[in-house]
Amino acid sequence: MKLQNQINQKSFSPNEGFIKNYQQLVKEVVIPYQYQVLNDSAQDNSEKSHVIQNFINAGNALAGKGKGDGFYGMVFQDSDAAKWLEAVGFSLSIFPDKELEKTADALIDIIAAAQEEDGYLDTYFTLNDNDGKNRRWTNLLEGHELYCAGHMMEAACAYYESTGKKKLLDVMEKNAECIYKVFMEGSQFNKEAYPGHPEVELALMKMYRLTGNKHCFELAKHFIDVRGLDPQHFEKECNQRDWTVWGSDGKDTFYNQAHLPVRQQKDARGHAVRAVYLYTGMADLASAIDDADLISACKDLWKSITQRQMYITGGIGSTNLGEAFSVDYDLPSDTAYCETCASIGLIFFASRLLEMEVNNEYSDIMERAFYNTVLGGMQLDGKRFFYVNPLEIVPGIAGTAQTHRHDLPQRPTWYACACCPPNVARLVSSFGKYAYGENADTAYCHLFAAGKIDFANGISLNCETEYPYSYTVKYSLEKAGSDSVLAIRIPGWSKEWSIEKASSSSASFTSSGAATSNQVKGYVYIPVEKGDVITLKLDSTPYFVYPSPKIPDLSGQVALCRGPFVYCAEGLDNGGDVLSLSFDVSKPVTEIDSSKVTAFNSATPDGKKPVSDQYFALNVCGWREKIPETLYTTDKPEKSLENIKMVPYYTWGNRGINQMKIWFPHN
Amino acid sequence: MKLQNQINQKSFSPNEGFIKNYQQLVKEVVIPYQYQVLNDSAQDNSEKSHVIQNFINAGNALAGKGKGDGFYGMVFQDSDAAKWLEAVGFSLSIFPDKELEKTADALIDIIAAAQEEDGYLDTYFTLNDNDGKNRRWTNLLEGHELYCAGHMMEAACAYYESTGKKKLLDVMEKNAECIYKVFMEGSQFNKEAYPGHPEVELALMKMYRLTGNKHCFELAKHFIDVRGLDPQHFEKECNQRDWTVWGSDGKDTFYNQAHLPVRQQKDARGHAVRAVYLYTGMADLASAIDDADLISACKDLWKSITQRQMYITGGIGSTNLGEAFSVDYDLPSDTAYCETCASIGLIFFASRLLEMEVNNEYSDIMERAFYNTVLGGMQLDGKRFFYVNPLEIVPGIAGTAQTHRHDLPQRPTWYACACCPPNVARLVSSFGKYAYGENADTAYCHLFAAGKIDFANGISLNCETEYPYSYTVKYSLEKAGSDSVLAIRIPGWSKEWSIEKASSSSASFTSSGAATSNQVKGYVYIPVEKGDVITLKLDSTPYFVYPSPKIPDLSGQVALCRGPFVYCAEGLDNGGDVLSLSFDVSKPVTEIDSSKVTAFNSATPDGKKPVSDQYFALNVCGWREKIPETLYTTDKPEKSLENIKMVPYYTWGNRGINQMKIWFPHN
Repeated sequence: MKLQNQINQKSFSPNEGFIKNYQQLVKEVVIPYQYQVLNDSAQDNSEKSHVIQNFINAGNALAGKGKGDGFYGMVFQDSDAAKWLEAVGFSLSIFPDKELEKTADALIDIIAAAQEEDGYLDTYFTLNDNDGKNRRWTNLLEGHELYCAGHMMEAACAYYESTGKKKLLDVMEKNAECIYKVFMEGSQFNKEAYPGHPEVELALMKMYRLTGNKHCFELAKHFIDVRGLDPQHFEKECNQRDWTVWGSDGKDTFYNQAHLPVRQQKDARGHAVRAVYLYTGMADLASAIDDADLISACKDLWKSITQRQMYITGGIGSTNLGEAFSVDYDLPSDTAYCETCASIGLIFFASRLLEMEVNNEYSDIMERAFYNTVLGGMQLDGKRFFYVNPLEIVPGIAGTAQTHRHDLPQRPTWYACACCPPNVARLVSSFGKYAYGENADTAYCHLFAAGKIDFANGISLNCETEYPYSYTVKYSLEKAGSDSVLAIRIPGWSKEWSIEKASSSSASFTSSGAATSNQVKGYVYIPVEKGDVITLKLDSTPYFVYPSPKIPDLSGQVALCRGPFVYCAEGLDNGGDVLSLSFDVSKPVTEIDSSKVTAFNSATPDGKKPVSDQYFALNVCGWREKIPETLYTTDKPEKSLENIKMVPYYTWGNRGINQMKIWFPHN
Repeated sequence: MKLQNQINQKSFSPNEGFIKNYQQLVKEVVIPYQYQVLNDSAQDNSEKSHVIQNFINAGNALAGKGKGDGFYGMVFQDSDAAKWLEAVGFSLSIFPDKELEKTADALIDIIAAAQEEDGYLDTYFTLNDNDGKNRRWTNLLEGHELYCAGHMMEAACAYYESTGKKKLLDVMEKNAECIYKVFMEGSQFNKEAYPGHPEVELALMKMYRLTGNKHCFELAKHFIDVRGLDPQHFEKECNQRDWTVWGSDGKDTFYNQAHLPVRQQKDARGHAVRAVYLYTGMADLASAIDDADLISACKDLWKSITQRQMYITGGIGSTNLGEAFSVDYDLPSDTAYCETCASIGLIFFASRLLEMEVNNEYSDIMERAFYNTVLGGMQLDGKRFFYVNPLEIVPGIAGTAQTHRHDLPQRPTWYACACCPPNVARLVSSFGKYAYGENADTAYCHLFAAGKIDFANGISLNCETEYPYSYTVKYSLEKAGSDSVLAIRIPGWSKEWSIEKASSSSASFTSSGAATSNQVKGYVYIPVEKGDVITLKLDSTPYFVYPSPKIPDLSGQVALCRGPFVYCAEGLDNGGDVLSLSFDVSKPVTEIDSSKVTAFNSATPDGKKPVSDQYFALNVCGWREKIPETLYTTDKPEKSLENIKMVPYYTWGNRGINQMKIWFPHN
């Protein structure tokens, strides 16, 4: 059962601050640039996208005007348009922009025209089926039809939520009905089928919650229920058809989480993005129908990820082979895959679990994944992106050795497979939904983001903070009911903390680190009324994190964190070599002047400053080992004292190619 | 120029001792078992070999009696027979055995009958060309014709050296002449061709040195000279033919060391076994023709391997992708490939360099590779073999995670691709050739092996030692000339050492660790005469080895060694968990009673004791970290004092599946 919900997108209006800066970067740089890509008008993009042209061509073909130059791109190319529209939808609610809205409306018109009469919508199939052969729904394993549909449904929900415009929502309700007919009322084989890439499940749940459309709910439940009932379904599908996209044989049932019925899945396995998208849908359904087995599976999968397979950065999916989860405790720093999209999916999953159980276990990891892997996935100027987020970079090995080809030392430009950049854009733009939640009488503050929040339950508050670069958060209650409660998360990393309530009418109080009666599972619940000012002070002390010895790759290592940030050392702040450094964990870590580390390029090509020139560098006391002349030596290495300069992980790789390292040996 | 040569195989007669025990194991277990495999009569071998049947079928086909069931196996299947014959040849000189010799003679007759009229010999091509299409020499990239020829030439040399029987040598001289015609006198395209898998070069040099056949020398030189002159040669070859073995496209020129003319190659790259076989041939040719550029390339390649790409165990070729060298300093312990054959090839290469320059730099690594990776490649009972020799095993990850599939926690039975087992057999059986060298007046002792050595230069000595399980070696001069010199290697690992000469006629003396005038590049040169007794005492103190910080994988780690042995900790001696251990390098390492570690199975299936029940276990003082309940923790891990039990690396994986680790964090 849901205890609380994400707030509506329009409920959150950001003030100045870290999150607003990022949202503005997305609005000013990422969204316009991505539109140029979709439209094939970006100057510096070497990869043709053809996304919008695909929709135009499909519309023309349906209107009998010929299919032009046909379809171009990946089989899931349509989803790029969907994710862009979703980001635009979210962004418009924060930064109204008539011009942008007009552009989006025009794209929605183009998309609507590409929908077939029965509601079917997928330009790859519409354009490629013009050879008289109907390939629709014959290759769920590779075809991504339901994946693309899911993303367009999410776009429709976001666009409606922000603009009140229903056109895309209508298109996608019709599309859902088309899918319903095929998979709920079609052949027995279709009734046993499930998506090759989960996504439509969580999207259908969104549609259902927004529109009340029962078929959307039934369809989401159906796809979740049938998944893995017949693990050989994809293999059978392969045998039934005479075409393929990549030649997949459907035999690796783990890859698609088809190895077991979902309620029996306890270990997160296979393609990491597929996995967390599925688990998000499962958790959403579980709370809707109060399904104990499904809830239990979700919690087991969460534990499998976060207690045995997650990097300190909130990165998941440690192997590039299949972009997948490996096995428990196999978490190499240097060959890590850690796809940006996988951490975004982990945030989705955490957010759904948090709706069922308010517990900082979920919100801590949501925050950790966001401030490290997700933000690290984007260059500070918003122009380049990482798919892969390793925890160690040694130029010469990274990006070069066969086993390290995927671990790049610098963010590349837009990819042919452009899943991560728009995924970051939509998450950043909808940050408010993850930061705040609500139910009938309570306002939940899961993450810290400055802004005004008008909860649907009548509570209104203003949040002032320079978090994550200050550790004080002030909530001013502008409206509240008689039973209103403010629930504030105390992050697990904050050893010391205090909450002070200043009230004109009722008693003021101060809570602090010691267990207080009003603290449950990492949240402090405070009765509030209009005029109250609640001040949260968190612990700004940098702290060391030690790995379980069960992770073979991290034997004897330690990492530095502060607040939600994991820190790293880069070569250019440390004499070019971070491999010979080790930490003295007995000495205090100190803030250092940013001028002590190499400056970020403050002038980006368009003259704008990058989003984070405000990072705080930290100094760790430690040692530098003298590099011996031979590869191995019997002489114990000489060490000299060294001040090690550290920067937040999300800023790495923004200052040219150089070494980067998070985990260090220590005393 | 050669300063000294390997001794003749018949010069060394082993006494009791470690090496003799291994040679006996090869004779009693490996050679008979491998013959059963070749003959398809092994009970427990699931893989069909068909090696001997291939030769029989080819002989019948040539005699017009039909080709029976044709060819079966890998394209290089013939080489299994060659390596077996070579091992048998070497073994017969140590352990004469009429029955075995008869079996070998019969196999040689079968092989001789499979030779075509013009000298061509390769059953894959002879049997597959019966379709009227002549594929001979059209696929050097994949075909392994020259590789198989090379191994059969090596077998012919070994068999002749030990038995004096010339039949196979005649066959292979005729074969060499056939190859000469094709590649020295054939088409321009053939004149530009070179082997896909180097091996024939070193084999031709052996043939030349044994028979004086000039064509063998010219051919070896030719193949080395043309290699990489046209790096696209293999690609062109692909385009010229209409068949393939595995579909290789010849574009990865590094894989075959075809990326540059060999004299310009400075970095060891590509398939590791191919690389070291090539470099061995290059070094052999270089000393024969005193070619400064070739010598310089060989030394650069040696440095590239041993100073930037070699594991502490003497393992090389760190990645399973292409069984290849990776890039400098990329030496992961857990995903290491380290093929047994590659370390054997490294020993070949070292031995050739040692012939040009007597320097313990070469012999130290020869010894390290032998006592760790090569011996570790074989189960103690001689019945199972590793191809891949990782430096860390964590069951659950090793052999299971996609990236660790090749790193098995236990030696499997015979492989379909059976290159490593017979390679170990031939190296162990010819150990004397690597241990001892000679020139006109000097006897060289590179490695320590008990036995009687009758050098061709007239020196005879008896070597008594229990090395590597004792550190005293006694040489008794039984014959010597007037200018005779004994050159003894002082291993680099031996910090303390002494040499005592007891002589009846001339002055006795004692040298020790301090630089002495008669010590050059790690060898002590001692004038000797008949009756002298030279006693070498080496340092038995266990020692720690520290890696260069340039190896990212070993950050802050240390390993334990003693003499030539690298030590490892296995789970079953250490409470099941070696991942939470760290070393206290300030405390002395002590010998411990073998009863303190779990016993090896002393009763193997045939009732024989395994070769090493005599290993010495060592105790390292250190700590065990308490395993926290969470994957990451801010609490500094609690540590308790622990006695860590270590065994020599070559004995690992002989007592069931459990953890194994060489490198540990330390204070």
